[in-house]
Amino acid sequence: MNIFTERESDIRAYARVYPVVFDKASNARMTDEDGKEYIDFFAGAGVLNFGHNNEQMIKAVVDYLQSGGILHSLDLHTTAKRDFMEAFTKTILEPRGMAHKLQFMGPTGTNSVEAALKLARRVTGREEVVAFTKGFHGMTLGALACTANQVFRNAAGVSLENVARMPFGCETPCQGCELGCGLASLDDMAAKYRESSSGIKPPAAFLVETIQAEGGVNVASAAWLEKLGAIAKEFGSLLIVDDIQVGCGRTGNYFSFDGIDIDPDIVCLAKGIGGLGTPLAMNLVKPEHDQHWKPGEHTGTFRGQNISFIAGREALKFFDNDTLMNEVHAKTEIINQALAPLAQHAGIQLRGKGMVAGLDMGDGVRARSIIDICFAQGLVVTACGSEGRVLKIIPPLTISEADLKAGLQILVEATESTLAEAA
Amino acid sequence: MNIFTERESDIRAYARVYPVVFDKASNARMTDEDGKEYIDFFAGAGVLNFGHNNEQMIKAVVDYLQSGGILHSLDLHTTAKRDFMEAFTKTILEPRGMAHKLQFMGPTGTNSVEAALKLARRVTGREEVVAFTKGFHGMTLGALACTANQVFRNAAGVSLENVARMPFGCETPCQGCELGCGLASLDDMAAKYRESSSGIKPPAAFLVETIQAEGGVNVASAAWLEKLGAIAKEFGSLLIVDDIQVGCGRTGNYFSFDGIDIDPDIVCLAKGIGGLGTPLAMNLVKPEHDQHWKPGEHTGTFRGQNISFIAGREALKFFDNDTLMNEVHAKTEIINQALAPLAQHAGIQLRGKGMVAGLDMGDGVRARSIIDICFAQGLVVTACGSEGRVLKIIPPLTISEADLKAGLQILVEATESTLAEAA
Amino acid sequence: MNIFTERESDIRAYARVYPVVFDKASNARMTDEDGKEYIDFFAGAGVLNFGHNNEQMIKAVVDYLQSGGILHSLDLHTTAKRDFMEAFTKTILEPRGMAHKLQFMGPTGTNSVEAALKLARRVTGREEVVAFTKGFHGMTLGALACTANQVFRNAAGVSLENVARMPFGCETPCQGCELGCGLASLDDMAAKYRESSSGIKPPAAFLVETIQAEGGVNVASAAWLEKLGAIAKEFGSLLIVDDIQVGCGRTGNYFSFDGIDIDPDIVCLAKGIGGLGTPLAMNLVKPEHDQHWKPGEHTGTFRGQNISFIAGREALKFFDNDTLMNEVHAKTEIINQALAPLAQHAGIQLRGKGMVAGLDMGDGVRARSIIDICFAQGLVVTACGSEGRVLKIIPPLTISEADLKAGLQILVEATESTLAEAA
Amino acid sequence: MNIFTERESDIRAYARVYPVVFDKASNARMTDEDGKEYIDFFAGAGVLNFGHNNEQMIKAVVDYLQSGGILHSLDLHTTAKRDFMEAFTKTILEPRGMAHKLQFMGPTGTNSVEAALKLARRVTGREEVVAFTKGFHGMTLGALACTANQVFRNAAGVSLENVARMPFGCETPCQGCELGCGLASLDDMAAKYRESSSGIKPPAAFLVETIQAEGGVNVASAAWLEKLGAIAKEFGSLLIVDDIQVGCGRTGNYFSFDGIDIDPDIVCLAKGIGGLGTPLAMNLVKPEHDQHWKPGEHTGTFRGQNISFIAGREALKFFDNDTLMNEVHAKTEIINQALAPLAQHAGIQLRGKGMVAGLDMGDGVRARSIIDICFAQGLVVTACGSEGRVLKIIPPLTISEADLKAGLQILVEATESTLAEAA
Repeated sequence: MNIFTERESDIRAYARVYPVVFDKASNARMTDEDGKEYIDFFAGAGVLNFGHNNEQMIKAVVDYLQSGGILHSLDLHTTAKRDFMEAFTKTILEPRGMAHKLQFMGPTGTNSVEAALKLARRVTGREEVVAFTKGFHGMTLGALACTANQVFRNAAGVSLENVARMPFGCETPCQGCELGCGLASLDDMAAKYRESSSGIKPPAAFLVETIQAEGGVNVASAAWLEKLGAIAKEFGSLLIVDDIQVGCGRTGNYFSFDGIDIDPDIVCLAKGIGGLGTPLAMNLVKPEHDQHWKPGEHTGTFRGQNISFIAGREALKFFDNDTLMNEVHAKTEIINQALAPLAQHAGIQLRGKGMVAGLDMGDGVRARSIIDICFAQGLVVTACGSEGRVLKIIPPLTISEADLKAGLQILVEATESTLAEAA
Repeated sequence: MNIFTERESDIRAYARVYPVVFDKASNARMTDEDGKEYIDFFAGAGVLNFGHNNEQMIKAVVDYLQSGGILHSLDLHTTAKRDFMEAFTKTILEPRGMAHKLQFMGPTGTNSVEAALKLARRVTGREEVVAFTKGFHGMTLGALACTANQVFRNAAGVSLENVARMPFGCETPCQGCELGCGLASLDDMAAKYRESSSGIKPPAAFLVETIQAEGGVNVASAAWLEKLGAIAKEFGSLLIVDDIQVGCGRTGNYFSFDGIDIDPDIVCLAKGIGGLGTPLAMNLVKPEHDQHWKPGEHTGTFRGQNISFIAGREALKFFDNDTLMNEVHAKTEIINQALAPLAQHAGIQLRGKGMVAGLDMGDGVRARSIIDICFAQGLVVTACGSEGRVLKIIPPLTISEADLKAGLQILVEATESTLAEAA
Repeated sequence: MNIFTERESDIRAYARVYPVVFDKASNARMTDEDGKEYIDFFAGAGVLNFGHNNEQMIKAVVDYLQSGGILHSLDLHTTAKRDFMEAFTKTILEPRGMAHKLQFMGPTGTNSVEAALKLARRVTGREEVVAFTKGFHGMTLGALACTANQVFRNAAGVSLENVARMPFGCETPCQGCELGCGLASLDDMAAKYRESSSGIKPPAAFLVETIQAEGGVNVASAAWLEKLGAIAKEFGSLLIVDDIQVGCGRTGNYFSFDGIDIDPDIVCLAKGIGGLGTPLAMNLVKPEHDQHWKPGEHTGTFRGQNISFIAGREALKFFDNDTLMNEVHAKTEIINQALAPLAQHAGIQLRGKGMVAGLDMGDGVRARSIIDICFAQGLVVTACGSEGRVLKIIPPLTISEADLKAGLQILVEATESTLAEAA
Repeated sequence: MNIFTERESDIRAYARVYPVVFDKASNARMTDEDGKEYIDFFAGAGVLNFGHNNEQMIKAVVDYLQSGGILHSLDLHTTAKRDFMEAFTKTILEPRGMAHKLQFMGPTGTNSVEAALKLARRVTGREEVVAFTKGFHGMTLGALACTANQVFRNAAGVSLENVARMPFGCETPCQGCELGCGLASLDDMAAKYRESSSGIKPPAAFLVETIQAEGGVNVASAAWLEKLGAIAKEFGSLLIVDDIQVGCGRTGNYFSFDGIDIDPDIVCLAKGIGGLGTPLAMNLVKPEHDQHWKPGEHTGTFRGQNISFIAGREALKFFDNDTLMNEVHAKTEIINQALAPLAQHAGIQLRGKGMVAGLDMGDGVRARSIIDICFAQGLVVTACGSEGRVLKIIPPLTISEADLKAGLQILVEATESTLAEAA
């Protein structure tokens, strides 16, 4: 009996691409039940910034469990939560002069987006939100309305409303892209808001990823983000940065927007924030907006997970000094040097920032065959973007240089052989 | 510095009612950082059916952590997941002849409802869903549209659509209730579906709790549920039972609908399913409906949590034999005997089934003052229902008889003294 | 060449039932191009209360045309409009102590409903409106959302939103009807508005016909209407009476609600108001609501039609004294006496008030075959209600007794012969 | 007693700008009750293409009335309707090789748009429609969602959904306009339709005016319209041309799009079609789309007005030969020559095509003061566009050259004096 085929929902997806049963994992390595090891360039879709089963975190969690620390506590105050909040405030917020409040909700990215949308609508008294082409923000109905991909949208079964779609401002346009991105489209948008007969009003919020990881590793230009921020301010719209996949150190800074001159009203965090890959989600909200919440208006059984606070607090120690971020810069170099030659091939494009890279193969079938070769060779890598044509390289930040190079070699060879075959 | 007042979002709610910092917990007891102990009649809003930090589960999780078991794995197959699925199938589904498939999604109840709604709409090609007065189904936009409480609905900031509201069929009408519940309202509803000029069409699904726990511990009558099930079948609508708060043994059977002649198309589970109170959500879906999913249409980073599989698998052992369920029956008796005298007072009503009881005080201010007295006396109990006027008694199923009786005594005395004061 | 089959849209409907080409008409008689005469029991679906081509009106209109009177004038003041408004105020409003303002809009019933809905939403700041089972309010999107019939609703192509559907309070339940109408359903509704956890809020307005003419000649009981009016007042919802088909004298009083103790906030009029059957629509709006309009917010090219003002002003003379209304009472008697025996047959029901009667045949095919026999015999009568099973008798109020009796005889004989055949 | 201030709704608008009581009218002249005459450059907002009370039409209508011709007939066949349909087919459709069917609905422009939207959604199975910045399509909810002006939209009281807004492709950008119109925006739009991750799908229809008359006399370029038509064809979207205000000869051809290489699926007509300014609306629908209607799905009491058929049939005689259209070309010249010098002033722009001209004053207050001066001088002219800053010159096509020149002189002098005063 194979319980998965017999009893697991047909909706399972990644499990079809990597059809083994995983058992153990450590940093950038996963092991299946037959003992075969895989280098992990997927990292739980950006969850495992600090690797699988980080030793310090495991130790802290085991200690907590063995000491009888409270595990489930709704939104009650706990010592574990306090430690996490104090560390986050001191390590991340205070150095940046961010006065934001911390809001915990159901421990998923989509829930953090839902909460942000509610608050933005409350604060502004407006209904419509602007999201961007190729954006990905989750699966629950409010967040799904902001997600661009048609496959996901088609599953809604109802109209997805109160969201207007604008072109995302890619730094480098994707090959063959004609979506009219860039600064001009922002100017057009602002002009419509100023014109009372345009039929278009300023939104409650702009919901934006600085790098669209699911959307194909599309990196917004700083100039575009800064203009977007200025427009939000001009029209009284909130700027919400969905930093769920590319925050928490992924780009070489804690926030993906560090170094860009924007001032988000709300930052959505999840994935990496819990350290070990146990669920947690948290919004950073400017106090002047946060005060519009009434107590208990957006609840959830699992907001505030103590295991995630314990491990997440350990993770924050990576940001006490520059060691990890410097490593990220060095590994970014390694990734780019390894992959740049592939982008010399016609029809292939390399995009990315920090330790998230996208190798756009221009073709989903080709991308998939590379994935399959890699998997056979012991590398887990996945695809993103339209038709899954972009290979996404998003290893743990803590991956060893050896594993990183070994994984890249597998990927490069798989790509070269696929290209050679096609030629 | 108090980090909570300084930096936690104003939306915090329970933390305002129980303004201490919790530190440790064991079965039905929580301890704050000053060492004060509290008997827990709240149990994480129905999460902690098996108590805080159950020893067997803690041991299993610690073993898993120390053995390097994979923690985060998206929807990949893992050995931990296999064990859980096999145990669930063998222990729960097979004895009931349920062919349902298991779908994992983002690990929150609201997410399981969102997935169920999508599938029901897909299967039927219909948009509207029927939910019931006083129903509670979550906070994300699709589930929120099904939730009745106006406080939560007002936070949406947009219209909540595609949901029709029908009266819930309470076994015992709440005192003063004029909502027109009962079998007659189901007959009216069916008549409208049959009449092409009624302006009302059969829905994609009926989404129902057998006991509305958040809504005030309103228990549906078996006759009403059975008629509802028959109507769903007649009109090709899916019957979705939201068993998130009252499933997993709460009523003295695994499912709250065991013993009632209905055949749910989808059962939503969360809260208790993960054993220890770490997040997990799972829908049981009839295979003929499940096959309408396309792979990956409803995703989520945290679907399938291995820690929750490990602890949840331990929890299933409670259902290998009748010991715990027999205990539940005995403790139900204890609760009812303790509280029945209070319901002799004018304006007080006792409702419930199994180990979830509601003491309707008819007045939210009075209920709150009882809660405050209890908390001072070392008992955590909370309120539900309109204006929070119903005290909800939902202790761990595993609570010791001593703690149960001690807690009940605190509650009874607090109630009596409040009533005496008012007289 | 038949231009109709070649070039007229497939959507044509009545023209398929009465497949001749009409040429001339006078009071209750229409003549086709072959000279065949038809008694008219349809009267333009309630438009021709004063018959086809009333002599006084024709004379007044011809005089106006020949004198160079302005025909098209948007919403400008004209002498023709002034005369109409003054006569309407003096003849209809002042005797009833109604302070309502007169609003003209695009000259169709659906447009008057759209304007009423907008204003009710503006005044209350609420979105949802309550309309009733079997109600008919028009075809444009806002009014269509209030219309119950599924055939019309299905043509929308989009979700019809912001309307809740409640059971209509029939005086006499239709045979076989199980829609749960009556006073109890209003009590249930009010209870839900009072209960904050019901998931239902009071609406912006209740939109109601006192007699659902298209819906099957369903007559609301006075008690139900009066309770509805009281509920509207209690919850700050506007009471909108759609008197488009049964106002202007049809029931033996000018308004269909004369003699019933309700106080509508808005009354929608169209159809009969223009006298000759040229387009006009007008809302009567209480001044305290009307003042919420900003100038020009609801416009329309054809609001205020001077030909309709001229003929409509003539029509108001019928209400200077009791002559016509007394005739209506007498003819109502004639209709009821003629049709009552048919209602003795099993499965046939007679409903109605004043000169609108519905003979519910319980079966649309049977009703249609009676219509066809009548038409062959020189009587135009049509069907309404679910599946078109109700024969609707709605002749001009001014029909001669001879024509009325002749038409009734044709109808009775056609019905009897159809029943005999079926037996 | 002034009945208008006492009893007419506060919503009245034009009547406030021209606060007299009109009594008679002839061709391009209106006379108030004091005998003062006004030259009419407004023509009922484009209704009176053939002037007020055209003698031939008045005679035909009087003859019809005096002969007992049937006036009200729902959608029944009548001889008057047949004559109109035959003449329209022969005069307008056949010479253009248009196989379109003729659909009559409630006799207003907004109703014709509602019907067109329903059919487009039915044919394509899609919900969303694209309408354009500054577009005006009516006041009922479905059409209003397509209208851009915020004043009108704000009156809805509910969300306006299922419409996406794209920039209109002005031939000459308005002064100061930054709306990003033009061909590039169409290319961007098409690119989004091609990209499955854009979050944007092709619409059911593009609803477009070739000249936005209410929107400020914005003339679409032929190149833009042709590209739009090609995109509609590529993506299976219907092209709906709203020719309500600028069809029926206004531009010097019968249709405003004559001579432009587009092939509309549906053409909406109203206003001028009825000849004398009595209500009529008609859609031209390609047979392959029309067949998707089921009989009676979109009804309306006043579809098919016989007086309008009689007068409208007379109006079609103007298109039997080129006389009127040649006159239009000549008068267009006169208008342009008179107004061109004004456009030399900084901040003033002249736009238009055929006998609809817009003089954009860049400022609504200035435009209004010119209107007031003109009115005092005996010229009725109105404003359109954002904040009413564009003077719209839209006289009857049949205006005498003398009246045209006299009116233009008043307008020019009023403008010059206003400018002089400001300087």
